[in-house]
Amino acid sequence: MEKNYINVGLIGYGTVGKGVVKILEEKKNIVLRKIGKPIRIKSICDLSPIDKPELYVKNFKDIIKDPKIDLIVELIGGYEPARTIITESLKAGKNVVSANKAALAKYWDQIFTTAQIYQKAIYYEASVGGVIPVVQGLSEGLASEEILEIKGILNGTTNFILSEMKKHCVSYEEALKSAQEAGYAEADPSFDVNGIDTANKLAILASLAWGSWVKVKNISVIKGIADLDIEDILITREFGYDVKLIGSAQKTKDGIDLSVQPCLVTHEHAFATVENEYNAIMITGKDSGDVLFYGKGAGQLPAASAVVSDIINLSKSIVTNTAGIVPDVVYDSMKKIKIIPAGKSKAPYYLRFAVLDRPNVLSKISGILSEFKVSIARSLAQFNINKKDYGKIAIITHETCSENLEKALKKINATKSITKSKTVKIKIEI
Amino acid sequence: MEKNYINVGLIGYGTVGKGVVKILEEKKNIVLRKIGKPIRIKSICDLSPIDKPELYVKNFKDIIKDPKIDLIVELIGGYEPARTIITESLKAGKNVVSANKAALAKYWDQIFTTAQIYQKAIYYEASVGGVIPVVQGLSEGLASEEILEIKGILNGTTNFILSEMKKHCVSYEEALKSAQEAGYAEADPSFDVNGIDTANKLAILASLAWGSWVKVKNISVIKGIADLDIEDILITREFGYDVKLIGSAQKTKDGIDLSVQPCLVTHEHAFATVENEYNAIMITGKDSGDVLFYGKGAGQLPAASAVVSDIINLSKSIVTNTAGIVPDVVYDSMKKIKIIPAGKSKAPYYLRFAVLDRPNVLSKISGILSEFKVSIARSLAQFNINKKDYGKIAIITHETCSENLEKALKKINATKSITKSKTVKIKIEI
Repeated sequence: MEKNYINVGLIGYGTVGKGVVKILEEKKNIVLRKIGKPIRIKSICDLSPIDKPELYVKNFKDIIKDPKIDLIVELIGGYEPARTIITESLKAGKNVVSANKAALAKYWDQIFTTAQIYQKAIYYEASVGGVIPVVQGLSEGLASEEILEIKGILNGTTNFILSEMKKHCVSYEEALKSAQEAGYAEADPSFDVNGIDTANKLAILASLAWGSWVKVKNISVIKGIADLDIEDILITREFGYDVKLIGSAQKTKDGIDLSVQPCLVTHEHAFATVENEYNAIMITGKDSGDVLFYGKGAGQLPAASAVVSDIINLSKSIVTNTAGIVPDVVYDSMKKIKIIPAGKSKAPYYLRFAVLDRPNVLSKISGILSEFKVSIARSLAQFNINKKDYGKIAIITHETCSENLEKALKKINATKSITKSKTVKIKIEI
Repeated sequence: MEKNYINVGLIGYGTVGKGVVKILEEKKNIVLRKIGKPIRIKSICDLSPIDKPELYVKNFKDIIKDPKIDLIVELIGGYEPARTIITESLKAGKNVVSANKAALAKYWDQIFTTAQIYQKAIYYEASVGGVIPVVQGLSEGLASEEILEIKGILNGTTNFILSEMKKHCVSYEEALKSAQEAGYAEADPSFDVNGIDTANKLAILASLAWGSWVKVKNISVIKGIADLDIEDILITREFGYDVKLIGSAQKTKDGIDLSVQPCLVTHEHAFATVENEYNAIMITGKDSGDVLFYGKGAGQLPAASAVVSDIINLSKSIVTNTAGIVPDVVYDSMKKIKIIPAGKSKAPYYLRFAVLDRPNVLSKISGILSEFKVSIARSLAQFNINKKDYGKIAIITHETCSENLEKALKKINATKSITKSKTVKIKIEI
């Protein structure tokens, strides 16, 4: 490349896009030292006109077909036209930086096959874990590893809400309101709180770890935090646990076991200290053992910082004309990996039952659990003095097969000792 | 590069070297998928003959001048001939992977100037933090960041010893023996326990963070753990702290403040959960905020895994003939950075005095401290019932200038209330 600049086309000028422009302006010297040439934002595309009219381009296709542009940054999010922008940019010979976990998880096959065919690179560090360099850590830092397990707190919004609930003993609804006021939750927080965002990120990490496309639909359990009761957060704290929304991918002899759900971690677990908008990812390799990455998973500048780092690192190989020649993502569309179906995974659980009559209800419940080979590690029963016929029973089980547990719960819930209010079940991470 | 192999020459066939050969053999498929060509160990140099006689080379110079070798892995450690091997390899047009923190810290200028002149690359992930990809995290993952602070538990041996002392309430000497038996401390553990190893690693991270050579002699305090008393570990635990050996580099308006010393961290601090041979590094960037990396800092396979990851990542650019063209380490030998001299840094401290007479000793000590503007946050006095004239006074100070504190301690130690046994001073990390 004989040019004096790396020319960047930016598509999507929202919070993160503005942060990227700001950081690139502020860090001109750092950029120059790192890659030997300046990076120039040549065009910015957005739905509506922007505060830099000289750079404004209305149609993203004009950026993709601009022969002077070396690198396209896609920051619009969502599935379409993001997919089109990414794949058409690669086809047009551009390298791409994206923060789009939804499109990457859904179109992994198409995106990385296109990148391989056209020998172009796509970097996407900001799509998982905000500012935490976990994509690079997994694909390069642990390049030699056989990955055994990935576990992560991958969504800043839900972690903020869970921290608020715990800290102030408030309901999910109240904590969500605080998160919205603090700018950590959107007006419609569905994708964050229902676990889909975590599932997208887990699919990306798993695809990267095992060199095959792990789809969101391969994740056997996707459960969010919206129906978490503050009561369970308080009871489990007594048992020595914190509640976290955890995406988990585990390689077992039978295949990969994937889930996204609220889980209990002990106060001594590294995840227990991860509060507010922070994320953490624990990667376990055969030779490396546990490696933990931790940092801000949300916020304008942390996300923009990760995007700019991608721009810098990708520009280094643009300068030598080698971006994408050796693919950064190992992906073989023919390689299939076995996925463990729901129900076959094993873990200890926390259970809470709302019970009606006191005399022999605990023996009834424990009898049914034992019938399905679910054994009890600890239990706690509490009955309301004023309402003699109402009470709750909380149980920590030993490790159990989730299928068996489901059958036991079905039978217990059908007995007349149990009130119609739901029985609570939360997995315990060990 | 038209060859079918990446040819590696390995110099140093000790514990880590053997681990590297083992991992490369086991992970042939991963390597092939990542770089498209196999990696072949062509020659191994060691002082004495090895278990692979067909690869054995007695003189490292024969490896350096072998035109077929693309990449030289230096794993002999120490200053010489390691420096010669690294620089002569670069001059001979070889790329280098090294795990040698001592040589890198001491010859940073020469090594990276040579790499720039000869446009070759040197990777050294295993030199800091064992398997933790913190070198790459700092130079690439946080490529866009202005680094404000680096703090780390950087030595697995000392952390193992401190964990043992705390866990079993034993003396330093007993804990060292356990560490030696467990294989985490060498027969002569000096470089680990006196802080030099941590200082080497801190110098490397600081040089990388600020693009200028930070020397070990720039570190104003280098203090090890050999004179730590189990008594202070127990007292400070009562105050809510753990003791860790921390290397710290902080950018202030007056310059970079560097130190290596045992420090107190609260039980809630991320470092408090780092036990045994684990390391952790917290990097604070202007936009990123805190980013933490954690993993095994010692052990054959973790170290070897980091070396093999370097070999793989470096091979990707060897395949495209571009290794070292854009330097991975930004180093400008003309750039000078200001270092804060010892005594000017500020922190709270833990102090323990062995005192002789009870009546007014606390008021005497606090009087002298206040004279030098050292104010007390908490104190604890304890007198031995059987020896009425002997006791100890433990104090947690507010933030104080270390120079002032030194003057106060000098004056206090000169009073006749203080026994001849040493006064203890430990910095508190905030």
